[in-house]
Amino acid sequence: MDFSLTDEQQLLVESLQEYAERYFDDQSVMDMYEAHQVPAEAQDAYRDAGFPFMGLPEEVGGIPTDHVTLGLMTEKLYEFTGAMTPFMTGMLACADLAEFGTPEQAAVIMEEYEKSGQSVAALCLSEPAAGSDNMGMTCVTKKQADGSFILSGQKTWVTNGADVPYLIVIAKDEDASRDNTKMSLWLVKRETPGISTAHLTKIGQHTVPFVEVYFDDVVVTEDQRIGEAGAGWLLLMKNFEFERCLVVAQGLGLAQAAQNDAVKYAKERIAFNKPIITNPRVQDLIEENEIILQQTRHWLYYCLWKLDQGESINADIAMLKSWGTRAHVQLADNAIEIFGGLGYTEEVRVGRIWRDLRGNMLAGGTCEVMDYIAGRAIPKWYAD
Amino acid sequence: MDFSLTDEQQLLVESLQEYAERYFDDQSVMDMYEAHQVPAEAQDAYRDAGFPFMGLPEEVGGIPTDHVTLGLMTEKLYEFTGAMTPFMTGMLACADLAEFGTPEQAAVIMEEYEKSGQSVAALCLSEPAAGSDNMGMTCVTKKQADGSFILSGQKTWVTNGADVPYLIVIAKDEDASRDNTKMSLWLVKRETPGISTAHLTKIGQHTVPFVEVYFDDVVVTEDQRIGEAGAGWLLLMKNFEFERCLVVAQGLGLAQAAQNDAVKYAKERIAFNKPIITNPRVQDLIEENEIILQQTRHWLYYCLWKLDQGESINADIAMLKSWGTRAHVQLADNAIEIFGGLGYTEEVRVGRIWRDLRGNMLAGGTCEVMDYIAGRAIPKWYAD
Amino acid sequence: MDFSLTDEQQLLVESLQEYAERYFDDQSVMDMYEAHQVPAEAQDAYRDAGFPFMGLPEEVGGIPTDHVTLGLMTEKLYEFTGAMTPFMTGMLACADLAEFGTPEQAAVIMEEYEKSGQSVAALCLSEPAAGSDNMGMTCVTKKQADGSFILSGQKTWVTNGADVPYLIVIAKDEDASRDNTKMSLWLVKRETPGISTAHLTKIGQHTVPFVEVYFDDVVVTEDQRIGEAGAGWLLLMKNFEFERCLVVAQGLGLAQAAQNDAVKYAKERIAFNKPIITNPRVQDLIEENEIILQQTRHWLYYCLWKLDQGESINADIAMLKSWGTRAHVQLADNAIEIFGGLGYTEEVRVGRIWRDLRGNMLAGGTCEVMDYIAGRAIPKWYAD
Amino acid sequence: MDFSLTDEQQLLVESLQEYAERYFDDQSVMDMYEAHQVPAEAQDAYRDAGFPFMGLPEEVGGIPTDHVTLGLMTEKLYEFTGAMTPFMTGMLACADLAEFGTPEQAAVIMEEYEKSGQSVAALCLSEPAAGSDNMGMTCVTKKQADGSFILSGQKTWVTNGADVPYLIVIAKDEDASRDNTKMSLWLVKRETPGISTAHLTKIGQHTVPFVEVYFDDVVVTEDQRIGEAGAGWLLLMKNFEFERCLVVAQGLGLAQAAQNDAVKYAKERIAFNKPIITNPRVQDLIEENEIILQQTRHWLYYCLWKLDQGESINADIAMLKSWGTRAHVQLADNAIEIFGGLGYTEEVRVGRIWRDLRGNMLAGGTCEVMDYIAGRAIPKWYAD
Repeated sequence: MDFSLTDEQQLLVESLQEYAERYFDDQSVMDMYEAHQVPAEAQDAYRDAGFPFMGLPEEVGGIPTDHVTLGLMTEKLYEFTGAMTPFMTGMLACADLAEFGTPEQAAVIMEEYEKSGQSVAALCLSEPAAGSDNMGMTCVTKKQADGSFILSGQKTWVTNGADVPYLIVIAKDEDASRDNTKMSLWLVKRETPGISTAHLTKIGQHTVPFVEVYFDDVVVTEDQRIGEAGAGWLLLMKNFEFERCLVVAQGLGLAQAAQNDAVKYAKERIAFNKPIITNPRVQDLIEENEIILQQTRHWLYYCLWKLDQGESINADIAMLKSWGTRAHVQLADNAIEIFGGLGYTEEVRVGRIWRDLRGNMLAGGTCEVMDYIAGRAIPKWYAD
Repeated sequence: MDFSLTDEQQLLVESLQEYAERYFDDQSVMDMYEAHQVPAEAQDAYRDAGFPFMGLPEEVGGIPTDHVTLGLMTEKLYEFTGAMTPFMTGMLACADLAEFGTPEQAAVIMEEYEKSGQSVAALCLSEPAAGSDNMGMTCVTKKQADGSFILSGQKTWVTNGADVPYLIVIAKDEDASRDNTKMSLWLVKRETPGISTAHLTKIGQHTVPFVEVYFDDVVVTEDQRIGEAGAGWLLLMKNFEFERCLVVAQGLGLAQAAQNDAVKYAKERIAFNKPIITNPRVQDLIEENEIILQQTRHWLYYCLWKLDQGESINADIAMLKSWGTRAHVQLADNAIEIFGGLGYTEEVRVGRIWRDLRGNMLAGGTCEVMDYIAGRAIPKWYAD
Repeated sequence: MDFSLTDEQQLLVESLQEYAERYFDDQSVMDMYEAHQVPAEAQDAYRDAGFPFMGLPEEVGGIPTDHVTLGLMTEKLYEFTGAMTPFMTGMLACADLAEFGTPEQAAVIMEEYEKSGQSVAALCLSEPAAGSDNMGMTCVTKKQADGSFILSGQKTWVTNGADVPYLIVIAKDEDASRDNTKMSLWLVKRETPGISTAHLTKIGQHTVPFVEVYFDDVVVTEDQRIGEAGAGWLLLMKNFEFERCLVVAQGLGLAQAAQNDAVKYAKERIAFNKPIITNPRVQDLIEENEIILQQTRHWLYYCLWKLDQGESINADIAMLKSWGTRAHVQLADNAIEIFGGLGYTEEVRVGRIWRDLRGNMLAGGTCEVMDYIAGRAIPKWYAD
Repeated sequence: MDFSLTDEQQLLVESLQEYAERYFDDQSVMDMYEAHQVPAEAQDAYRDAGFPFMGLPEEVGGIPTDHVTLGLMTEKLYEFTGAMTPFMTGMLACADLAEFGTPEQAAVIMEEYEKSGQSVAALCLSEPAAGSDNMGMTCVTKKQADGSFILSGQKTWVTNGADVPYLIVIAKDEDASRDNTKMSLWLVKRETPGISTAHLTKIGQHTVPFVEVYFDDVVVTEDQRIGEAGAGWLLLMKNFEFERCLVVAQGLGLAQAAQNDAVKYAKERIAFNKPIITNPRVQDLIEENEIILQQTRHWLYYCLWKLDQGESINADIAMLKSWGTRAHVQLADNAIEIFGGLGYTEEVRVGRIWRDLRGNMLAGGTCEVMDYIAGRAIPKWYAD
């Protein structure tokens, strides 16, 4: 076993830190949350640094790397910026496109990044009546006489869905009924006629807006299909394992940012004539937080490493996401507690991080869905 | 032992329900959170119903009642409205004024309520450098040659402090040093020259704005002093026991509102062809919530009853507040989870209640201060 | 609401304390655990004090009282003795007999107590293949040509089953299949031909031995049937509500005993030149314990009071038992921690109490069965 | 990062499994717990397989390896045997002797293992009045005119102390007062005149007996001193880091054994016509257990790896031990719950493991001592 970083990984971490220090000072981040978006300058710089190309194959102009490194990159980006930016979901959408798409579809990534540093695509999965129960989705494509397809239906909780040039949509093939397990992924331009969006106000994560997306008889063609017809669910399943890793990595980074602030404040803040860090009850909060960070981190990299070995981590990451995203909310809650009344204001960022992290318990599947997956899969690890 | 409500208590609950149904529908409450205040109409109706006079002595025009009933009133008001309104802190300020003040000072309550239903006074206690460590406060009054006093210093986290006609200020007598334990309470008009406020943006409780209050050589006179000179700390201690009960009662009511919503939604929401209430993992969240409600409720009324017997509940309520306010946040978190992605939006109120309840862990003393109090007091309950 | 004890309740508590101090010193209790039984002298004195007659109707020579008082009696008996004695299960069996049985059956109680202070009867419910799943039981009675019945099958986890004069047995009527919900309760002399027992070694509760009971074609007659034919399950359901209250009350008493010891030790034990009670981390353990005691106590008496009002407490006590019995184990664990290495030895009783309390999570239904009950019942408390 | 095992590690695991299967079937283990010792045959086979020589330097005949491998060996030994045997403490004592002792002292290891497979030495550290507060120890050596020393005092909680040929004793140099921080380690034959022991009955871990050891004017000589005079505390500190890793590794192995049993039983046990593994509440217990195992395992190996890099893991392992040993008790508690009433009997081993694991929360320092260490050390990891 070896827990060390490679030199390349170390360099990547350093360049992320430089990037974050330049574009994500306290005021910039507050502005992003007000504006509900990351400014173009910061997005372009992210692209210029090459970060969005990490993990993509060379054929599409990417910089191939392993899942461990992508997880590390995610953790550190979110720790250094302390902001719930759309970069992670953008990375995931590109990874899907590069892995499942045709060369032409994958080429879209570079084309779009030439124009802007903004994320290329957003994934449209959940529906108002089909959240945890994805099979209940009713978005559907129906083939037309001319060989094209009509896509109709409604998606919701689409992270970052209003601002991206492309949507990746999953819809049932021909038949919207529950029994039909055949569905496909489609790459659709956001500006296609028949697509409209409606903003959803979230209780956190204000830099990563949610939208509802309406597909009103949208025409798509066979070359827009990602992967094989009817195989969309399998692709999604594969996507989910890595997505959940990234959600945890992102949460880990933000949680570490909250802990960084809390420890710093506890060292500075004087009460009863002493820094509060000398108070055992404050120490216990900090220790609980550190335990959460250590538990998440080593287990997360184990999952990513296992993914790199080509093994399924379906149950592993279900457990880690269920437990870890909850633990990160607790960590941020403890950080608020250390700041006391100040922690409950916008003067500091721990309260913002607390709200942001709450969303991660839901992103990529609720804790109860994770428990459902894990509960059925773990017993198979054990001999009868 | 008897856990039943009296007929009067039952009637009170009903009139609170009527009041809440009339003035606190979903849209009204959202508007209050937007406007950062309760509309005058709802405040006036509250006064007209006589609610703010509950618990005040007859001499000042009040309706005397016991602490159990005031707790019940608080619980139910917040359950029925589902909104973190300033009524509870207003009730507490009036109770302090009536209990500790002169007849002239107490008369202010009625005078002000004749003008408006708005809360009469706000309590100014915490300071930027003296939160949990109240003795570290540096607000001070110095006697002048003419017998008047000059009040100077800064207070913070003053709930509801911008909009009320009166402030109740605690300040050290003559000497701001830590060693000086002599301090007094003062009743000061909000509009007195030398007083200014600055808004603090909180991460929740947006209908109960926090302000910083600056006292810049404010002149006060002996008749504004509440209670005996130098005895302010003792009065505050007495206030704290009841305040913490009310914070828990308020949180219990809001928590119950979140549970009401969560159970209702779980019965209606269909996934996998069945209402999600049939899912054992959803049931477990609802059960955990119900356990929290039951634990808080019966213990809270025990504390209030003990207070009515004239006994100190210093350690009891410290334990209950430390545990209970944390548990209520957990309950609201569970409610969000039951709603899934929808719970993370402003479309429903459980997320708002979650943020609101987080503040109660800090109001009236942090959990760590509660643990400090309880940790020293509990051993005295036991024989050596 | 009123949380005070009546004078009668206060007197009862005092007489329990006297009784416990006389027969349950440290050495006596250790001897009981070694001998796996309470000595005859202590059992007789218990009877002579009239304790087993509390709650029984006057007709059978009992001292009628309410459920609140019986809960209080149980809590205090176990607190004062600090030992997991069979009195509680004995009380329950008598209550069942008195409530559900014929006058002749109920008369057995007095007849047996005239001979000895030992518990009169033990309840035979669980079977090796039917624990949580009671309906899966296969004990059955079959009617014979002469009007008598043949009882056959095997029961397990029978608390106190080897030493009592009577067994109360539940068995299906005629047909052992799962679909048959008709079953009856029977009062059977332990010494009836065809009955044999086998000792089960438990990991705790060594004064309340478990046995397996084998019924090998045991002849019973109609007058031994308790209650109506086929209605046994309904009687059991009714029994369960009160049983679970008593399990919690018993656990509460033992938990209080552990807390008494822990606080006393923390005051005496010197480390780093100070009593360890001054250590905030020790205080936090003691506070957590006290919170558990307060939460259990007030909620338990609410349940008992509700039972006295004639209401079902099926869901209430399921929640309380699920949470409370787990919390009591945690409390005892904390008590061990306060004693440090000493707590892990038989020199003190907190470790014994820890093991004893673990059994209460299983007695009267596992936590998961409680959660199943509560999870289905709570939603009905809420409007659709 | 790399989480794979080397071929050598894989082979080691296999040989441990073979060893365990041969000497630790269910009945053998029950006999060991009855006899309070591992039979000579199993001890000899352990030695013959070379296990006790793992990690010792070649000079003394050892098989050098890294800490990661020793941790792995410990985890697997305890998983495969499911028994709390004295091998781990024996390994630790030998490691101390080999690392801190003279060549002559280290040679004792091989000499003794030639005679028997029994552990060579036991560490005498705690005293009745100096548990967590080691500095309060009063065991002391005083130099005599002839150059020898008189060792006097009392030690307690000496794991395995009655049966080993050697004791490693820490005692203050010359002066027993608290202020004296100079202490030394001594290697003392168990059979030296003046040494006597008294058995302590523990509530678990019955194969690893505790004793009190009395040193009544025991003569020791300079060549028995391990390491430099006065430097004993530093050596102990170093020992503690590895000891705490081994305690966690041992607990992890036993916890895994409990989980193995629980999952197997849940697959076999039928209730309500289905294996209970299909019950979501049972699945949740199993998932909670698996989460605990995953969290402990990856973090533990990180700690061991860090130790192999020559870094201090004082705070890391304090956190892991505080959290991990508690979590393992919870895991075993869940395993009991899955077995239901059966889990509370000696028919299965989960209850035994539960009691055994409770001791690990105290071994090598209580959770509160761990929190004290971590609470002071963690803030130093963070920039001011």
